[in-house]
Amino acid sequence: MKQHINAPQVIHEVVACSTDADGSIQRLLYTPAWLAAQRHLQSIMDAHGFTTYFDSIGNLFGRMEGADNTRTILTGSHIDTVKNCGRLDGLYGIAGGIEAVLRLVHAHGRPACSLEVVSFAEEEGSRFPYAFWGSKNLAGTADPAAVSGLQDEDGLGFADQMQACGFAFGPQAARRDIAAFVELHIEQGAVLERQGADIGVVEAIVGQKRFSVKITGAANHAGTTPMAYRRDALACAAEIIAEIRNRAIAWGDPLVATVGKIEALPGGGNVIASHVEFTVDIRHTDAQKLSGFEAHVLAMAEDAARRHGTGLAVSKYLDTAPTPMCGEIVSLVEAACRKSCCKYIKMPSGAGHDAQIMAGLANTGMIFVPSRDGISHSPLECTSPQGLASGVDVLAHVLHGLAYAQPAPPNDKK
Amino acid sequence: MKQHINAPQVIHEVVACSTDADGSIQRLLYTPAWLAAQRHLQSIMDAHGFTTYFDSIGNLFGRMEGADNTRTILTGSHIDTVKNCGRLDGLYGIAGGIEAVLRLVHAHGRPACSLEVVSFAEEEGSRFPYAFWGSKNLAGTADPAAVSGLQDEDGLGFADQMQACGFAFGPQAARRDIAAFVELHIEQGAVLERQGADIGVVEAIVGQKRFSVKITGAANHAGTTPMAYRRDALACAAEIIAEIRNRAIAWGDPLVATVGKIEALPGGGNVIASHVEFTVDIRHTDAQKLSGFEAHVLAMAEDAARRHGTGLAVSKYLDTAPTPMCGEIVSLVEAACRKSCCKYIKMPSGAGHDAQIMAGLANTGMIFVPSRDGISHSPLECTSPQGLASGVDVLAHVLHGLAYAQPAPPNDKK
Repeated sequence: MKQHINAPQVIHEVVACSTDADGSIQRLLYTPAWLAAQRHLQSIMDAHGFTTYFDSIGNLFGRMEGADNTRTILTGSHIDTVKNCGRLDGLYGIAGGIEAVLRLVHAHGRPACSLEVVSFAEEEGSRFPYAFWGSKNLAGTADPAAVSGLQDEDGLGFADQMQACGFAFGPQAARRDIAAFVELHIEQGAVLERQGADIGVVEAIVGQKRFSVKITGAANHAGTTPMAYRRDALACAAEIIAEIRNRAIAWGDPLVATVGKIEALPGGGNVIASHVEFTVDIRHTDAQKLSGFEAHVLAMAEDAARRHGTGLAVSKYLDTAPTPMCGEIVSLVEAACRKSCCKYIKMPSGAGHDAQIMAGLANTGMIFVPSRDGISHSPLECTSPQGLASGVDVLAHVLHGLAYAQPAPPNDKK
Repeated sequence: MKQHINAPQVIHEVVACSTDADGSIQRLLYTPAWLAAQRHLQSIMDAHGFTTYFDSIGNLFGRMEGADNTRTILTGSHIDTVKNCGRLDGLYGIAGGIEAVLRLVHAHGRPACSLEVVSFAEEEGSRFPYAFWGSKNLAGTADPAAVSGLQDEDGLGFADQMQACGFAFGPQAARRDIAAFVELHIEQGAVLERQGADIGVVEAIVGQKRFSVKITGAANHAGTTPMAYRRDALACAAEIIAEIRNRAIAWGDPLVATVGKIEALPGGGNVIASHVEFTVDIRHTDAQKLSGFEAHVLAMAEDAARRHGTGLAVSKYLDTAPTPMCGEIVSLVEAACRKSCCKYIKMPSGAGHDAQIMAGLANTGMIFVPSRDGISHSPLECTSPQGLASGVDVLAHVLHGLAYAQPAPPNDKK
């Protein structure tokens, strides 16, 4: 049995078996590349003394049995990716978990609680429009009925693709043995880099509200329609978009608000736009402030539409609550940073993570390492070797505190 | 020889021979529908005593010889259309010209100057990307080299399509006999309708400047990038677009400024936009004010780009000077409105017309009739029968003043 493997080596091997001929990396749920990656991870964990198994939908686990086998400390992240992804998003948390658990078991022997690494089947929602499929199955909150009819962009069905990988829908209850979950992940932003910090101690994952906003004006000739006669959907939309940014800045961090998508019709340079549709994405760690900003933006948009004489239709297509991380685990991560001599800051996660699903099941925490230039979901995704190592060190200290101390902190989510 | 035909009858007949099986009307340059319309107009004019002829590129003329056959008073407009057009844009000016000239000749006999109706081959630029092909050939300002390589969207060549209709490039000098040109046209805006006026006496055709504006920021994660770290191309563009409208209103009529086309990339609702491209269309009848507003907008955009940390690239793709109408003809049109008991207003034309090309060759004027709801370039294009008749009455009075008075006003453009 092999004794050690480090996170970069795991990442290297998994990336090697999920790289296309053109050099792009992607492991979309239930594709051959995804299955090859899960099997390779299984073989790595098997070779290093983990007891491995898949659950019915394809989440992979590697377990080191503890003295108390009814209480499990879980770490890991998701194996699936966006299209043409980088090397680290998701995979780093799995690889770091494998390295940290091995290091602990070989240094300290059998833990008090069982230690387990999870490679979640799916988090990104990039093949089928359903995110967090992996962690939701673990937490008992997945909705098989919602995915069973889904198709990917080639018309391939969710259930068929799952079955082709050897998995099947089945009754899957929430795992009741999970005492805590800790996720190691790249930051996907530039806050740590800009602040010169090694580690981000995540205090909360933001709640998100996403809207589609439709403005309806009247198409008209750009030359023959005096300004006063116009009902210009794009002029109205532009005012709203500019104002969303101004007001987000005024409300202050950690609020973020983004308009990333816009379409104007009929789309002629010499025709006043009659229809504009754009998206609004707002996020905050405080549910009340998030709702407050939502109301503030909608009132502002209504006022703009009234002044422009345009119609306004808003439909919300995403609404997730902020998820605070477990205070005890936040403290453990801080203590681990001090032990590892890492400079850390406490921060929110502006992106969604499996940890927000797991927080409904167990005491949950997250550890961030810096992302170079804040880039993620791109082949340019990069964290320095030292940055990757620091994250694993901190994770190992946290897992030690959770799995080797007696007793493990109570799971108040049960 | 037939004595009379009125404008609605001419319109009815020409529309009948250029309506598709699906009910849509279009007479794109050098198509069978276009040729059928020109030939039908020729047959109408032949039947009513005009001497008709085509020039080398397909402009159609119907002439009533005057006592002085070296001086011609020309009226008319263009036969070509946009796709799926209405019944009136262009065609009304030709049909109204035929009715007005016939009425004059039958009421007053041979004119002092020759009277001629023109059906210009092309003005819209809707089949090939070259506008005013008809009037530019008459004025001696067309550039055959610029059109010879053009293809329509089916890849058919300009020269081939022209030849298939029986026309050919040939040396065509400016017509030196044109003493004056008067164009009757629908307003294509809602100013006359809103002001309850029967006739618009056009004082000037606006100059136009059109730009493409590219903003370059940085794509980033909408959740993990604090507001202060962003270089958001769409937020910058929105501020500029909103401000263009605000400043256009502040400058006042007849300035108009329009952003009708926008594209944001990468275009994800949860991704900060890195690239935005939009158009700007500004128009004014005063060249100095038009240039002043252009400089004002560009300075504002540069300031916005600097504050947002984004790149800004502006390229101008259209720049035409305002064209004042001939003062004597403006006065003649006003006098004609009074004779016809029409309520009129003096106004600019916010759209381009053949008259702006002809103004370089001869004393030129334009007469507008109301467009219902300001609609044009659409099957919904409509002017009341009374509105159409008033325009022809006014045109007839103006042509009488120009062609029957001795002497015709001097052509200071020669």
